[in-house]
Amino acid sequence: MNGLYLDNAATSFPKAPGVADAVAGFLSNSGCNINRGLYTASYEAANIVYETRELLSNLFNFPKPENVIFTKNITESLNVILKGLLKSGDHVLISSMEHNAVMRPLASLAEKGVEVSTVLCNNKGELSTGDLVLQIKSNTKAVIMTHASNVSGTIMPLEEVGQLCKEHNLLFIVDSAQTAGFLSIDFVALKADAFAFTGHKGLLGPQGIGGFYLNDKLAALVGPLIEGGTGSASDSVLQPSYLPDRFEAGTLNLPGIYGLNAALKYLSADRIPAIREKELSLAQRFMENVQTLPGIQLLGPAPKQDRTGIASLNFLNRDNAEVSYQLFKDFGIMTRCGLHCAPAAHRTLGTFPQGTIRFSFSHFNSHQDVDYVIDLLKGLFPPKN
Amino acid sequence: MNGLYLDNAATSFPKAPGVADAVAGFLSNSGCNINRGLYTASYEAANIVYETRELLSNLFNFPKPENVIFTKNITESLNVILKGLLKSGDHVLISSMEHNAVMRPLASLAEKGVEVSTVLCNNKGELSTGDLVLQIKSNTKAVIMTHASNVSGTIMPLEEVGQLCKEHNLLFIVDSAQTAGFLSIDFVALKADAFAFTGHKGLLGPQGIGGFYLNDKLAALVGPLIEGGTGSASDSVLQPSYLPDRFEAGTLNLPGIYGLNAALKYLSADRIPAIREKELSLAQRFMENVQTLPGIQLLGPAPKQDRTGIASLNFLNRDNAEVSYQLFKDFGIMTRCGLHCAPAAHRTLGTFPQGTIRFSFSHFNSHQDVDYVIDLLKGLFPPKN
Repeated sequence: MNGLYLDNAATSFPKAPGVADAVAGFLSNSGCNINRGLYTASYEAANIVYETRELLSNLFNFPKPENVIFTKNITESLNVILKGLLKSGDHVLISSMEHNAVMRPLASLAEKGVEVSTVLCNNKGELSTGDLVLQIKSNTKAVIMTHASNVSGTIMPLEEVGQLCKEHNLLFIVDSAQTAGFLSIDFVALKADAFAFTGHKGLLGPQGIGGFYLNDKLAALVGPLIEGGTGSASDSVLQPSYLPDRFEAGTLNLPGIYGLNAALKYLSADRIPAIREKELSLAQRFMENVQTLPGIQLLGPAPKQDRTGIASLNFLNRDNAEVSYQLFKDFGIMTRCGLHCAPAAHRTLGTFPQGTIRFSFSHFNSHQDVDYVIDLLKGLFPPKN
Repeated sequence: MNGLYLDNAATSFPKAPGVADAVAGFLSNSGCNINRGLYTASYEAANIVYETRELLSNLFNFPKPENVIFTKNITESLNVILKGLLKSGDHVLISSMEHNAVMRPLASLAEKGVEVSTVLCNNKGELSTGDLVLQIKSNTKAVIMTHASNVSGTIMPLEEVGQLCKEHNLLFIVDSAQTAGFLSIDFVALKADAFAFTGHKGLLGPQGIGGFYLNDKLAALVGPLIEGGTGSASDSVLQPSYLPDRFEAGTLNLPGIYGLNAALKYLSADRIPAIREKELSLAQRFMENVQTLPGIQLLGPAPKQDRTGIASLNFLNRDNAEVSYQLFKDFGIMTRCGLHCAPAAHRTLGTFPQGTIRFSFSHFNSHQDVDYVIDLLKGLFPPKN
């Protein structure tokens, strides 16, 4: 790819070292199926799949690897959990910063009688847990919340929310799309019941593989969304009830799992703090330099606050799309402009419908990369003396 | 992979030339997202995705490339169509040779009031369309049928079935898991309304990518199963209604699509007849030689009949699983033993619950490969003189 890719919140690039080779190696050398053949290559692939469940369990402190479910993306993960769990008459709470991967399935469930209440965040995207408690009702069943906003980089107080859910006997479902691979995450400490993740963003794996974890308490309540062959209990036309088979019908994305496996070995639990520090320092350097430029509004928490490595800018006197396009066409800088599939978040931040330009960094970026963009923006929007 | 892989009906191996390189090239060089960024790499990926919809349309004679939907596998495809279409009180017809990818979602829908009738096939897996007509009722909405059995290789008379569906105003949904890439398929000539396919079997692409086509008539009746971000209509919390976006929520499996794209370019419409001829000649040579051996029962149509390139054997005096394991352990031959996720088909063929050993060939196999297996089986089950 020519140019400077700053759209890592959409999908990471580059991927972790070894990802492409792991995928290609599987496809070239052992591209067979699992759970379905009595031969070594099939067992080897099954071992890699199980090892990948273990690597995810080690990274996120999931207690039971067999409760790690693979999906095609985190959107499927959230749909399976929400549509499998929620029935007419149930009430759920969400923040006003949720992505359409949560909003759209809930809008569809609302048509079927599920009640959805939104806890309004402030104009930096910050949630007050006091506001959440006020909206708990007798039929409240669950809280669904993003770990961090994909628009503003705001990190949600999930440990507090998890504690409140426990106190009020609510299920707690976490969307980690923007934090997996960036924050050190402990599923048990979050007191969550389900945790949805995607492989291709901070986890630095390929697109096409995501998943979720759910504990046995939640699993007892959630039926499958997709049913079919599992290579197990094949004598029955009923989907097996045990995990992970209940939620993994049809052939798994084995090349994707091989790629994710390689990415997780690169990441390992040890590397996350350094990744976080590097990405944050890049984003902070960027934000501190551009937030003072005239006509540029920085969204979300202040640069030095706890946040993720993304910066959303609103160009007050220009069309954002035009600026984003100019940054690419003239300077090779790849950003993401618009509503980022999160209209509710933009309404909260006051940037609906125009949206923002999001710059999202990778730990593979350098400070020189950041300075290049800062200097360009200073040229386009010269500071007033 | 060491040994002789004869499990191509589960997943093809080797893949088409260029598949691994296409996947790895995307991951290494341009691993970005589509519909979400205003930059060249994003447009390039979008072009490959669209080109892949066109390649599929050319291969199967789909009238509108935008009605080609990508999924993670054919099981998802069938679940989306069946669960999106069928409501309580609807009646559907299936054959008794269907895979659990059809049986399990229908079993789940039956609990919600959908009526399912099975047209019994004969003990070779053959369907009589007269039997199908007899079961049509006033509330019959659709016929769902596999194009060929994954157990016996029996090909269903889909053109006749499609004609009957048209005459009786029934929707017609085809499961092409065992025929795409083997038969020359014309969606329009089949008079089908929906056509589900998978990328990793006869289409010779990677696991993790499948899809379906549906015509506008059916599309008007089918809602999405998975909803979320599409990079389109992002101001709305409602899933876009237009195709393909309605059914493609979340990040697509772009590496998988790049791999499938390469596989489709290899296949092209021209190559299918030669693939069919080669696979069939391998399977026929195998079946004609082993069907005369004592204690070996060949399932499905006679070798010279029109069928797919798989052979299911039942070892009458041995445990099938033990034979399958011995074939691998002692001779490196990889087969698939058991019920093949199709218990209904095995009941029809008279091989439930013991199942069979399935030998499924690829056009990349040689006649020497086949002779190697024949000679081994002749040694294990010597012909009577």
